[in-house]
Amino acid sequence: MTEEFEQLIERAGRVGPEYQELVRTIAVLGEEGGKRLRPHISMLLYEAYSKKSGEDILTAAVAQEFLHLAMLIHDDLMDRDLVRYGVKNVAGQYRDIYEPLIEGTARRSHEADSMAILAGDLLQSRTYRLANQIETTPERKERIEALMSDTVERVIGGQVLDTQAILRSSGTIDPLVVAENKTASYTFEMPLLIGAILGGADEHELTQLEVLGKIVGIGYQVMDDLLGIFGEEASTGKSIVGDIREGKQTILVQRFRELAKKAQQEEFDTIYGNHHATVEQIARVRALLIESGARKALEKELSKIANKASRIVEGLAIDSKYKAAFIQLVSRGLDRKK
Amino acid sequence: MTEEFEQLIERAGRVGPEYQELVRTIAVLGEEGGKRLRPHISMLLYEAYSKKSGEDILTAAVAQEFLHLAMLIHDDLMDRDLVRYGVKNVAGQYRDIYEPLIEGTARRSHEADSMAILAGDLLQSRTYRLANQIETTPERKERIEALMSDTVERVIGGQVLDTQAILRSSGTIDPLVVAENKTASYTFEMPLLIGAILGGADEHELTQLEVLGKIVGIGYQVMDDLLGIFGEEASTGKSIVGDIREGKQTILVQRFRELAKKAQQEEFDTIYGNHHATVEQIARVRALLIESGARKALEKELSKIANKASRIVEGLAIDSKYKAAFIQLVSRGLDRKK
Repeated sequence: MTEEFEQLIERAGRVGPEYQELVRTIAVLGEEGGKRLRPHISMLLYEAYSKKSGEDILTAAVAQEFLHLAMLIHDDLMDRDLVRYGVKNVAGQYRDIYEPLIEGTARRSHEADSMAILAGDLLQSRTYRLANQIETTPERKERIEALMSDTVERVIGGQVLDTQAILRSSGTIDPLVVAENKTASYTFEMPLLIGAILGGADEHELTQLEVLGKIVGIGYQVMDDLLGIFGEEASTGKSIVGDIREGKQTILVQRFRELAKKAQQEEFDTIYGNHHATVEQIARVRALLIESGARKALEKELSKIANKASRIVEGLAIDSKYKAAFIQLVSRGLDRKK
Repeated sequence: MTEEFEQLIERAGRVGPEYQELVRTIAVLGEEGGKRLRPHISMLLYEAYSKKSGEDILTAAVAQEFLHLAMLIHDDLMDRDLVRYGVKNVAGQYRDIYEPLIEGTARRSHEADSMAILAGDLLQSRTYRLANQIETTPERKERIEALMSDTVERVIGGQVLDTQAILRSSGTIDPLVVAENKTASYTFEMPLLIGAILGGADEHELTQLEVLGKIVGIGYQVMDDLLGIFGEEASTGKSIVGDIREGKQTILVQRFRELAKKAQQEEFDTIYGNHHATVEQIARVRALLIESGARKALEKELSKIANKASRIVEGLAIDSKYKAAFIQLVSRGLDRKK
């Protein structure tokens, strides 16, 4: 990824130093960041099917990281977040750059946010350019390019629904549909398929992987929902009051609504989504989610998903050492620290 | 384009009605809009080289319109504009949609702007998906996809410079470089090359067209700068005080700085960029641009560009009827109503 950023900085320099400055704010974030989950999945799958080194598909791996970074930069804008991976994101860095140049915080923020819009757009264009440079047959490349843009179309759909779930009356939007489109499609289905297509997997295998990506993605989201309420902030780095105060329509809440008694629902509704909920009220929401059986139900679903995922992996036409690595990867996603 | 939007609305429906709503706000804008300059150029060039109907490359034409729309939606966000093509843009339409849903104009505006970010991202992903569907040889398709993302990289560079020219001390950013990257690359070079590549033009022709696109694009920007100061608002639809009050660093201003005497420069600097400049002061800026010889110099450059463009077109390996249509197209761009 470093090499890609160096080239980009070099080319930006031909336009002007101000353009290089933008690319550098992106590179700060890109170098810092993330679990590299998508590249890891793609490379593992590629090795499993082709029996060649995952390094061969570095271009496809970096393309996915660029896309991910583009999404995060625009997501942060929508969420008004200025920090990502423990460093200032593009909008955050430009607030500093503009400090001596622009008077008034409102105008400064607006101009900094504008640069973050451009940063996300630049990374999107580079994503498809990298996809275009993947060394493979024209048919496989065409398929991967199509997969990437179709996945983005789904991710945006999931994002739109997720936003609207908060803005509109609860219950009209299915959090499972959000998880399928926003998480499963992009974090699991796409990387699995990219690795497998480039590795030469046949259609039957690809269908299996698509199903696998979908269920693991949903499981990942279920785990996220549980961690958002019952996790330990110290290990997840995620606030466990945020979801409750925001009134996030999670799969956990959906299960609660199906299982809880009327009185439990009514009590829940007085607290969930209240931005000023007290510590006691938050503890009460947690208790209700346990008492209703919602937590247990989801934990059961998670273990079913893990079993089904293992069965699919076992049935794949890859060597057993890759199956083991794959199952480990899946279970890490589904059994993160609570 | 209608068909593309219908398919997109249909697919969005599979995710949820809230996603369809977003696509519909985009379609309102897309159906309304614009001169369709890029598709027109590409189709003309394709016909000239292939002697087949321009309809054959409709996919490539629509891809360019999608890209253009994506750029405009994000541009409007940066410029805080809510109207485009005489109708409300995505951010504008969502302000209405959210009126009964979100209290407080600041939060409502932020959420509406978030939807416009997503709309631009969606259109970008569809642009590359359409490029992926162009029916041609793998080599030509690969080349066009690369051209499109490389052009976006340049456009964003031009946009960054243009923004920074206003924020930073004047004179450090060359408006010619902005015009080359922001206007010429995207409005002329890209559509010319797409049509010609798909039509089967050889490398020599493509090089000529690249040069042509560059000079015509710069000419187009020069014309825009002149119209921004000396145009008639009624026919251009563009305010002729905006550039002066904003202190826009145009090619016209660059020429003025090269030609004007010290006293003229000093007078100019007291007015240009003053948001409260009076009608008399604005008239004075116009007079200075004429007295210094800057206006005449640019008009001369424009006619040189028009001559050079005609010579290049004359030398192309296409039938004379296409040359005539092409020269007409070029001169319409370079000689718009003042």
